[in-house]
Amino acid sequence: MTFPVVGMVGGGQLARMTHEAGIPLGIRFKLLSDTPQDSAAQVVGEVVVGDYRDLETLRAFARGCDVITFDHEHVPTEHLRALEADGIPVRPGPDALVHAQDKGVMRAKLDAIGVPCPRHRIVADPEDVAAFAAEGEGFPVVLKTVRGGYDGKGVWVVGSVKEAAEPFKAGVAVLAEEKVDFVRELAANVVRSPHGQAVAYPVVESQQVNGVCDTVIAPAPGLEEALALRAEEMALNIAKELGVVGHLAVELFQTRDGRILVNELAMRPHNSGHWSMDGAITSQFANHVRAVLDLPLGDPRPRAKWTVMVNVLGGDYPDMYSAYLHCMARDPQLKIHMYGKDVKPGRKVGHVNTYGDDLDDVLERARHAAGYLRGTITE
Amino acid sequence: MTFPVVGMVGGGQLARMTHEAGIPLGIRFKLLSDTPQDSAAQVVGEVVVGDYRDLETLRAFARGCDVITFDHEHVPTEHLRALEADGIPVRPGPDALVHAQDKGVMRAKLDAIGVPCPRHRIVADPEDVAAFAAEGEGFPVVLKTVRGGYDGKGVWVVGSVKEAAEPFKAGVAVLAEEKVDFVRELAANVVRSPHGQAVAYPVVESQQVNGVCDTVIAPAPGLEEALALRAEEMALNIAKELGVVGHLAVELFQTRDGRILVNELAMRPHNSGHWSMDGAITSQFANHVRAVLDLPLGDPRPRAKWTVMVNVLGGDYPDMYSAYLHCMARDPQLKIHMYGKDVKPGRKVGHVNTYGDDLDDVLERARHAAGYLRGTITE
Repeated sequence: MTFPVVGMVGGGQLARMTHEAGIPLGIRFKLLSDTPQDSAAQVVGEVVVGDYRDLETLRAFARGCDVITFDHEHVPTEHLRALEADGIPVRPGPDALVHAQDKGVMRAKLDAIGVPCPRHRIVADPEDVAAFAAEGEGFPVVLKTVRGGYDGKGVWVVGSVKEAAEPFKAGVAVLAEEKVDFVRELAANVVRSPHGQAVAYPVVESQQVNGVCDTVIAPAPGLEEALALRAEEMALNIAKELGVVGHLAVELFQTRDGRILVNELAMRPHNSGHWSMDGAITSQFANHVRAVLDLPLGDPRPRAKWTVMVNVLGGDYPDMYSAYLHCMARDPQLKIHMYGKDVKPGRKVGHVNTYGDDLDDVLERARHAAGYLRGTITE
Repeated sequence: MTFPVVGMVGGGQLARMTHEAGIPLGIRFKLLSDTPQDSAAQVVGEVVVGDYRDLETLRAFARGCDVITFDHEHVPTEHLRALEADGIPVRPGPDALVHAQDKGVMRAKLDAIGVPCPRHRIVADPEDVAAFAAEGEGFPVVLKTVRGGYDGKGVWVVGSVKEAAEPFKAGVAVLAEEKVDFVRELAANVVRSPHGQAVAYPVVESQQVNGVCDTVIAPAPGLEEALALRAEEMALNIAKELGVVGHLAVELFQTRDGRILVNELAMRPHNSGHWSMDGAITSQFANHVRAVLDLPLGDPRPRAKWTVMVNVLGGDYPDMYSAYLHCMARDPQLKIHMYGKDVKPGRKVGHVNTYGDDLDDVLERARHAAGYLRGTITE
């Protein structure tokens, strides 16, 4: 059969789960991975071990692929343009992806298309941070390097001009943002195909611990329908205006005064969409594959009243297998997703999904399982 | 992490889908495949190409595996015993598997444990077939070679002594069975773990066309609860008495006079359980992996009121990709499962699942998609 080959750059868990979703679609996967031990490299048939920062490695990898997509946003923009010049479809393309790579470019574009964001501007040095603070409500101020941050890295909350020195040491442009008085964080996940078909997943609540996603509840409990609709429309509009192909996650702040502000963008399957693997008719991973191949998209609607995802972080116990067995015995409905990664404290090594009609029960089951796997709950 | 390695013998679609189910479980897969192009070999990371009939190939393959399981039932029993003697757990083990390999052994065992079967006995030659017919209702009689048959191969329905010559030509023992006056075929799927935990999927209706499974409806429509329960208990009892570890499919005849008779056994994930991938809380493939690793089993209950599976057979069109695209566009809720196999007329190359509250709608959607992919429906 002449089914296409998807080239996936990056061997993390997102690539692993995208491959899993591609198997029933009959799609062949080719993986460019840093090492043969990477999460996805363990489970994909055709693996090239190489450095995605090297253009010739990327070019050689891309031969025989019908489309290139990504597990992360770190491939240099100029390499993506070179692949496109070679005639390889790159999805999302470099003109879209730059908005997820560079927070300065992202903020400028969102301003231009009228999407509400926290007050922000690029700052030159600690004194400029003080000036930025003075232009608004004062300190604290959030500082972010425009490139290279993830999971709380590259982000500082500073309370004074003295504390504002650190972010400037990396030699990368620094973006200052107001510290938003939010009641909670939400995420709007959408998928868009090259010919413009798009689907929106229900808006979810995302709970962070130490800057890392911990719990996602789908749909966001108690979210007003009008606000949910506005968030979905905002995400669909961003996907369209930025020319996104594939999955787009829009991380949002819901403010105390009822506004929705864009926090971050991610152009790939996203932690806030992992619930969809067991909770939606079509998972974010399946729809990402369908989108990058310009196949018709699948139904994103939920299959359960409530679905909860809790991340499993590495704890002090390198071997999770006996805890994993215990969790399966305790809850035969539990959906465990392990990434095949070595356990290191704080590292995302898996997630659990639960679903059902009673949110308290669904939350308790997911939190218990994730805590037990991590080792913070022992009974 | 010290997660185990499952060694899968055979590279067909059952191995492919078992690997898919093993990915979220964090289980590593090692595959022994006839060719690098086999359905599962396309998607598994660690593939050994070799002949499962060769003991040394099997032994070399088994090194580094924590357990061996199967995509098919063709591995010689003596090789399985040799692997066990080497200390490798083989699941299902040879003492159980022989009942799925040899229909004579299977019938004798089912008789011994009191499971109702069609009237049957081993026959020596065509004259003996005539005698068997005369002992009951006369011709037609069903003849089966005791080993080597599948999907209608190795099975003959003969109307006279003259027609009874063919089955004896292979030099394999031949089993004669009454031609059961059944109203429909059912299948009871159960999964059993080494320490004896077992789960039963709802009994399904299985519709055959030309001896090949075409449509499965879960649960079997209009099946009396008492009869469904009896079928589940029968399958659980067979699994226990035969010492099955892993998935057991019990194919059943529902007779006009309200009895349930065992037609065939399969000790591996089975076509009559493919609906569970999208229709059950835990799929047959995930539970097979859990069982062979002696992990607690997952909940087998349905997630939808009705789930329908229809096989996609190869038709006259070698390229299904445009039909596949059409089906996705027509029905965004459709679950397509392609096996990556070359299209040959009549070959199982995939299946589709649909689910919902309205059986007529669910059936129509699945049949339309499968027919469109095959090329028998063009609008």
